[in-house]
Amino acid sequence: MKEDIKKEIKKAVEDVRRTNPMAASITNTVTINFVANAQLAVGGSAAMIYMADEAEALARVGKSFYINVGTMFSFYEETFQRVLKVFKEVNSPWVLDPVAVGIGDLRSKSLASFKKCPPKIIRGNASEIIALSGLWGLDGGLEISKVRGVDSQNKVDEAIEAAISLARFTKGAVSVSGQVDLITDGKYLARSYGGSHFLEKITGAGCSLGGVCAIYATCASPFIAALTASAIYNLAGKRAEEKADGPGSFQVEFLNELYKASPEDVANNEFIVEEI
Amino acid sequence: MKEDIKKEIKKAVEDVRRTNPMAASITNTVTINFVANAQLAVGGSAAMIYMADEAEALARVGKSFYINVGTMFSFYEETFQRVLKVFKEVNSPWVLDPVAVGIGDLRSKSLASFKKCPPKIIRGNASEIIALSGLWGLDGGLEISKVRGVDSQNKVDEAIEAAISLARFTKGAVSVSGQVDLITDGKYLARSYGGSHFLEKITGAGCSLGGVCAIYATCASPFIAALTASAIYNLAGKRAEEKADGPGSFQVEFLNELYKASPEDVANNEFIVEEI
Amino acid sequence: MKEDIKKEIKKAVEDVRRTNPMAASITNTVTINFVANAQLAVGGSAAMIYMADEAEALARVGKSFYINVGTMFSFYEETFQRVLKVFKEVNSPWVLDPVAVGIGDLRSKSLASFKKCPPKIIRGNASEIIALSGLWGLDGGLEISKVRGVDSQNKVDEAIEAAISLARFTKGAVSVSGQVDLITDGKYLARSYGGSHFLEKITGAGCSLGGVCAIYATCASPFIAALTASAIYNLAGKRAEEKADGPGSFQVEFLNELYKASPEDVANNEFIVEEI
Repeated sequence: MKEDIKKEIKKAVEDVRRTNPMAASITNTVTINFVANAQLAVGGSAAMIYMADEAEALARVGKSFYINVGTMFSFYEETFQRVLKVFKEVNSPWVLDPVAVGIGDLRSKSLASFKKCPPKIIRGNASEIIALSGLWGLDGGLEISKVRGVDSQNKVDEAIEAAISLARFTKGAVSVSGQVDLITDGKYLARSYGGSHFLEKITGAGCSLGGVCAIYATCASPFIAALTASAIYNLAGKRAEEKADGPGSFQVEFLNELYKASPEDVANNEFIVEEI
Repeated sequence: MKEDIKKEIKKAVEDVRRTNPMAASITNTVTINFVANAQLAVGGSAAMIYMADEAEALARVGKSFYINVGTMFSFYEETFQRVLKVFKEVNSPWVLDPVAVGIGDLRSKSLASFKKCPPKIIRGNASEIIALSGLWGLDGGLEISKVRGVDSQNKVDEAIEAAISLARFTKGAVSVSGQVDLITDGKYLARSYGGSHFLEKITGAGCSLGGVCAIYATCASPFIAALTASAIYNLAGKRAEEKADGPGSFQVEFLNELYKASPEDVANNEFIVEEI
Repeated sequence: MKEDIKKEIKKAVEDVRRTNPMAASITNTVTINFVANAQLAVGGSAAMIYMADEAEALARVGKSFYINVGTMFSFYEETFQRVLKVFKEVNSPWVLDPVAVGIGDLRSKSLASFKKCPPKIIRGNASEIIALSGLWGLDGGLEISKVRGVDSQNKVDEAIEAAISLARFTKGAVSVSGQVDLITDGKYLARSYGGSHFLEKITGAGCSLGGVCAIYATCASPFIAALTASAIYNLAGKRAEEKADGPGSFQVEFLNELYKASPEDVANNEFIVEEI
């Protein structure tokens, strides 16, 4: 099974490089540039928008979509509800990053509303995954979030139950980011190794991982897309750390390594997978 | 003629370095930081705003203005209409980047409205130039844009007729970005060579080129400003590629090279010019 | 006295590295990424928001807050007024960067309103400090700002009287950025040396200094926090310049040096202090 997964990862990396697929994003203003540059570095194309009709238009032309709720605007209420309707219609995958779930009314309300048209990939830190599962009334979730701003207060393994129940509910994949990334589709559970301590010392590592999940989701299953994104991030992170002298040069080298990583090396980046 | 143009390019580069002119911008949130840093690297000063009265104030104090419609907000309707009135009044040049023309109602409506107070420089990729010309009912334009998000689906040469008719209508210059940049004022047509394949692998190369056009437009004719901006971009791109190990370091080296490029080297960057 | 201050600076750098304190920000979209990365590089945690209820929530959980008015949105009227009420309630320090005071009605109105719940640290260039003091009707201020967009038209020493009167009014500290940074709490006046000419050739040096002031304000007095922020900036700027080949690499090296600076070296960065 692991060999089959490696082949699929390799294919996902190759397909994106060959077809330059576009995934549109509604994403936070803090890391929007880094998300776009990461999507481009792996071979995809980026387009970021805010308004409802523009989101609708791009949801129709793009092959996947990324929503990151990191910085909320009041008009997102309309944008989110209208783009959700298009997601249902076109049936293309979308990726959610439930940043800082628990902060603010509209954020909570929006994240709750996503349950009715669930994303095919959810990418978050452990606290966010636990809180989202709680918000959706699923197993492993907690009603009260321990999210402190954008940082996780939980370890990845504490989110396993929440991740599995979210994946089973969405019939998609859930990716929990941490020292080791945990990816599950409710049937299989993978752990992806590598990365760097510098990923916590720059802003946008998680956000851009979500954006890159959306790129791979244009041409792979949610589980393979999420696993491929983690694999290339963990590989590039490890390699970038060797060349970096601090978080400034890490960011630069990280984009270089995302760009240079060969499909074989991404597929061979250390991971384990088990049936649940 | 070519020697005269070279002298004017050299003078534009020198004047900006000496006078540190400010060009205010309304620009998209994805690449706003890169636009500002590029404007500073060539010797200009940057100020980015969103609200109508702030745009009016800066349109009065600045010597040129940049509007990039990459990420639309609903309140731009007011901002754009009010700043257009000031442009008419002060008669200073402004630069337009019609990013992703065709996506969304307000974007189309805004771009259509700019016809009544046309920009002195329009900078876009081939698809955007063709679509804008179509939107304004000019020759060489197509009613239906082939714009896919922010990427061009057309080659630069396909936009020649649209570029010329836009330039003649605006009595300004049009710059079509691509592997070779095409710049025309409706009378002359120049092609600027150089650049790097990495310019397509980072976000904001086009946006920041528009912002740098606005800086040079403070002290040169639209045609010379646009040609100077393309020349310094093509020179810096070529030099940065030699030092870059990927899109991360390319971005860094590119800003370095914009900063270091001598007026002579910018003027001598390869270009051809012909009378139309 | 200087030795005591050095000890406090050293302690502030250490405490932040050890406790990873979070300071939330409402800050401009141009430099928001750089602010967050600088806050992370010195050891803090960042969270950026726009909406009123999110600002309230983070003002309650964070130990300090940063407001930078660089890019205004109309809904800030509500956000600012509501977060000010929480500041009063929780009595935690907040830091203000009065960017481009004088441009636009809401910016002026907002900055005027901050007088009723004054920030513990004000960080600006000389023109901004003079203009804010004028706006608040304090000594050393001028009614008409010389602010041109975001650049200072005044020298640091011209702002001494305004800085002192603002510091005495707020019972906090004022930091005037320039070739030499001037920091005062109304009783002492310090000058911090170092930095780099490149700090003016990148966007966000001032904004991110304000954000880093907010991080140190979580565990030091306003005066020590502002002085520590200037010290680490001047040290990192000096060191980054030695390694940088232009503004692109300067930005990268600057984040590296913020991250690597030892508490001792920050404390020993050249400064003078006098009783007023």
